[in-house]
Amino acid sequence: MADLHVPLDRAKGGLAAQIATELRESIRSGRLVAGTRLPATRDLAADLAVSRGVVVEAYEQLVAEGFLLSVTGRGTQVSPLGAPARRSAPAAPTGPSQPPHYGHRPTSPDLGHFPRERWLASIRHVLTTAPVDALDYSDPGGVPELRRELAGYLRRVRAADVTEAGVVVVGGVAQGLSLVLHVLGPTTLAVEDPTSQRQLPLLRRAGARVVRVPVDDEGIDVEALARTGAKAVLLTPAHQYPTGVVLSPARRAQLIAWGGMVLEDDYDAELRFDRDPVGCLQGLAPDRVVLSGSVSKSMAPGLRLGWVVAPGSMAETIGLARGELDLGSPVIEQYALAHFLRSGGYDRHLRKMRREYRKRRDALVTALGEHLPEVTVKGIEAGLHAYLELPPGWDEAVAAEEATRLGLPAEGVAPMRERPGPPAVVVGFARLPAHRAAPAVRALKVRMSGQTID
Amino acid sequence: MADLHVPLDRAKGGLAAQIATELRESIRSGRLVAGTRLPATRDLAADLAVSRGVVVEAYEQLVAEGFLLSVTGRGTQVSPLGAPARRSAPAAPTGPSQPPHYGHRPTSPDLGHFPRERWLASIRHVLTTAPVDALDYSDPGGVPELRRELAGYLRRVRAADVTEAGVVVVGGVAQGLSLVLHVLGPTTLAVEDPTSQRQLPLLRRAGARVVRVPVDDEGIDVEALARTGAKAVLLTPAHQYPTGVVLSPARRAQLIAWGGMVLEDDYDAELRFDRDPVGCLQGLAPDRVVLSGSVSKSMAPGLRLGWVVAPGSMAETIGLARGELDLGSPVIEQYALAHFLRSGGYDRHLRKMRREYRKRRDALVTALGEHLPEVTVKGIEAGLHAYLELPPGWDEAVAAEEATRLGLPAEGVAPMRERPGPPAVVVGFARLPAHRAAPAVRALKVRMSGQTID
Repeated sequence: MADLHVPLDRAKGGLAAQIATELRESIRSGRLVAGTRLPATRDLAADLAVSRGVVVEAYEQLVAEGFLLSVTGRGTQVSPLGAPARRSAPAAPTGPSQPPHYGHRPTSPDLGHFPRERWLASIRHVLTTAPVDALDYSDPGGVPELRRELAGYLRRVRAADVTEAGVVVVGGVAQGLSLVLHVLGPTTLAVEDPTSQRQLPLLRRAGARVVRVPVDDEGIDVEALARTGAKAVLLTPAHQYPTGVVLSPARRAQLIAWGGMVLEDDYDAELRFDRDPVGCLQGLAPDRVVLSGSVSKSMAPGLRLGWVVAPGSMAETIGLARGELDLGSPVIEQYALAHFLRSGGYDRHLRKMRREYRKRRDALVTALGEHLPEVTVKGIEAGLHAYLELPPGWDEAVAAEEATRLGLPAEGVAPMRERPGPPAVVVGFARLPAHRAAPAVRALKVRMSGQTID
Repeated sequence: MADLHVPLDRAKGGLAAQIATELRESIRSGRLVAGTRLPATRDLAADLAVSRGVVVEAYEQLVAEGFLLSVTGRGTQVSPLGAPARRSAPAAPTGPSQPPHYGHRPTSPDLGHFPRERWLASIRHVLTTAPVDALDYSDPGGVPELRRELAGYLRRVRAADVTEAGVVVVGGVAQGLSLVLHVLGPTTLAVEDPTSQRQLPLLRRAGARVVRVPVDDEGIDVEALARTGAKAVLLTPAHQYPTGVVLSPARRAQLIAWGGMVLEDDYDAELRFDRDPVGCLQGLAPDRVVLSGSVSKSMAPGLRLGWVVAPGSMAETIGLARGELDLGSPVIEQYALAHFLRSGGYDRHLRKMRREYRKRRDALVTALGEHLPEVTVKGIEAGLHAYLELPPGWDEAVAAEEATRLGLPAEGVAPMRERPGPPAVVVGFARLPAHRAAPAVRALKVRMSGQTID
């Protein structure tokens, strides 16, 4: 028979629950082992100076949960299910040797400029005006208000050919691609070479067989694409990642003539500095292009809000798939983004950030030209990163590490390539204030000349 | 040569963009057909009284986008890509004959009680205190603050055996199940009969082969489960959906002894009225139970926030999978829920709602006992719905339709069954104020007696 010490906090009430908790923990920790007989309810009640009903309730609770067994003629005992073998917390995770990396990507925006007050005002607007049912289950393809605002925005800013019904709200470009590949079924998918190596596991997990197609100074090589036999291609026409190349008019025409399905990743197209953004491919061939974008570069990756524009019934099919996978994106932030778009807050924020990023880009490019003219700078018409071809003797990985340490988050391009290419790094300039560009570049020069001498 | 009418708003500025937009729309709408030669830039500039550079810029933009072609010696003409065949907006969706139904499920909470002010205060707390990097890409398995709070909450309220590392934040139980099945790979999955028919497409889409196992007054029939040969079972032990049965202690023990993987859907367990909640199965066998829950019943389905508690390295595997599928849930609301839990707001809200729902449930049960004693009421110890076995001659579908019309959202159980069973409906009482229960039940009685006479 167990001798039980059950500390009770009488001021707190819920005495039966307190007893049950204490017993449960004792069984879990192994202090009470399987088969141990518990005191009769009247004895424990007397020990603890509580009514017998309280102890009965506690025992019943643990019997219901399976920690105790009530055996006729033998009273109450600890169930074999309560043995210490199972009391262990889940084992410490045994992860991959390379822990995943979050945040501070070269393409991350400057989150110090996230419009916190105006975003809070949008959320407040939603929470003070949305009807009760707005908080219920809703269309997994996105709330109608946001789909309408996004369709208008994409027509206006990206020259997309789209109505509300063609837009699906998703949790960013990654989810958009997962869903598109999910509804396409197993597909041979052509992907640019080089490309973001982060997307490759996503594409393969979604069932795509990936073939790589080289990118040159006009963008993807459409003749090489045609030779692969792929029925679909994923590309970044407005600002190729990582090279920053803009797909040339001739290649746009060739690509449309090619005739396959184009998955257009429009990840940073709003952030174009030197001229109006080139309209998206989707506007040219809305029946064969699926356009994906998000607010990850324009506002913050943490919002996890984006869109897919898909032809014909595909938008609805994607929405239905989402209805079976996760029931859609959270609604309050969908309404908040709709309000932010409608009220002009989004456009104002973009204009402000475009000015700021242009300053930072210009400062970086000027500093590189002055202090590191041996570095070739490419792909700077848009976006938040520059593509730097490195001089002979520079090690990509070392250059990326040093630049990152100096406030210019960077990645070597080698892991993004299938075919070999000149050493290069992608460098994000969004977070480096203009006045710090020259010192950072000078320091990089010093460190890299140390590197090449060693 | 086209005669162009381009209305310009000079006050607005951006004349080149205005011209480009007008031309783009003319090409799309078919007013300018493929091959049409455009006026020379100097002629159009004179017509519009703008500088020639403005027209050059507009033409260049449309050449870059592929709407126009610049042909040496023949000036600028409309590209064959701009032909009306492709100008159509995405075709009207051609959906399934039965449009999907959102909201007003029998299990939806009363969203009129959603704690809007306190939730807004939590969001404000996050937006005024979170560090800049909190808005960046983050751990797709959930932000550490929320995982920690959820682990503490689940230990305290559900007697779960879990630490922070065992919790994955997901967008609700549906996504939790999708992810678990995704990482398990193709599986024969046993599912209760009856069960929510909404989940079946999800399970099949996630790759599971579904076999059904009958539920009786003690819950799932574990001997029948063992005979199926399934390696995993999905069940609702705390409050079976739809019958409301609580899995008996004997069956809990049998189930653990069975030895397969248990997917525990804990969809409404916090809303238990007559006694402390029965601890979750996961607390008994943390190495073989995967627990899923969400705030959909306790707060609002539209928040799309939930959790999965998984053994050993499975939690991490699910997080990594999510990192390749959608990069995780939005972070601001994750931090807000962590704050709401930590500050006690969540517990207070739950206590208040439990009191309110108990009142509504009691009023409904009393009214049914008085006015419709021929209906058998079951499964009312917890949750937001009652399971009503109907008297002979009542049609399930008609009863469900009438009850829904009277403010008691209801569904017939027949579509939830594989094996035939007595006619029954699931009725949600969360949205019907206590004082309206008796009138609603009396009206239902009148309508259904009309029905049985017809």
